[in-house]
Amino acid sequence: MFWNIFNIYILVEAVWLVIPIYAANGLVPIIKGKRPVDFGRKFFDGRPVLGPGKTIEGFIAGCIFGAIIAFVEQLAFPYLPWQLSEVPLTIVPMSAGLGAILGFGAMAGDSVGSFIKRRLNLKRGAPAPLLDQLDFLVGSLLIASVFINIKFEWFIILAVITPLIHWLACIVGYLLKVKKEPW
Amino acid sequence: MFWNIFNIYILVEAVWLVIPIYAANGLVPIIKGKRPVDFGRKFFDGRPVLGPGKTIEGFIAGCIFGAIIAFVEQLAFPYLPWQLSEVPLTIVPMSAGLGAILGFGAMAGDSVGSFIKRRLNLKRGAPAPLLDQLDFLVGSLLIASVFINIKFEWFIILAVITPLIHWLACIVGYLLKVKKEPW
Repeated sequence: MFWNIFNIYILVEAVWLVIPIYAANGLVPIIKGKRPVDFGRKFFDGRPVLGPGKTIEGFIAGCIFGAIIAFVEQLAFPYLPWQLSEVPLTIVPMSAGLGAILGFGAMAGDSVGSFIKRRLNLKRGAPAPLLDQLDFLVGSLLIASVFINIKFEWFIILAVITPLIHWLACIVGYLLKVKKEPW
Repeated sequence: MFWNIFNIYILVEAVWLVIPIYAANGLVPIIKGKRPVDFGRKFFDGRPVLGPGKTIEGFIAGCIFGAIIAFVEQLAFPYLPWQLSEVPLTIVPMSAGLGAILGFGAMAGDSVGSFIKRRLNLKRGAPAPLLDQLDFLVGSLLIASVFINIKFEWFIILAVITPLIHWLACIVGYLLKVKKEPW
């Protein structure tokens, strides 16, 4: 099939792009927002549109975290050993602006995931394997694709590694006793 | 990005391949199997490995349903209006054997989904959006890719349309009062 896309060059290109996305998604939970994006409204089914987990503060923080980390990447870019690559790499020009877009897209995708979970009557925090790991990634890449050229292969490799990284991180958190459950 | 893959030609090629997969996945629930694939065993976490929903009869039925529908496609192939296409289509040569493989792969992927749900302590039948719609598809395409050449684009288009078709079917079932809940 397409196993050949799973190579180190595509991986490096994809990881470069995803760092601000992971940062936004991973850091936003430390913000305790109070203003829900859905203003506490219910949907036709009588359930919350998104629920109290999606806040305006969270959206803003996602943009800021994405922007900061992307800016750090931009600063680091000239000092990284790109010449080690045997093929020319397609490294997205990183900037605070693109980072903010990536962070916003992550929040938007995560909100779509919450919308789906609420429709299925899943409570806030209830695990939705795959959806939880892919909503923010797909949202971020789709919105970013309006502004930058995103390779198909990045999308695929990130869709495969993101759930694996997420679950590994959860298991590490559990073993370190930071988390109660291994997910 | 890659919006250009969403065209009618790729869609026709992909739907041709996915019909036995949908058939296997959609028809197997009518089989009330009694022999669980996991032999009722528990995993390290004390929860069922797969649960009683995955049975040997189901696996066999999945292969048979896939084989039957693929054979129907094989018979229908010469009578279908392929010449209407403005571009040469890549139509996978369908056969009962390939159908059985596609059906088996669907069952295997579905079992992986159940394995993940059991690890997250989700009960049998609890909704897992995306995982429920993609586990059988990804399993089937991965296993089939050992035997046939599967285009990247088919994979993507099917990953996008399958959850949509699944949800549409659920809503229709709800409106027809066949199902109690709209999912």
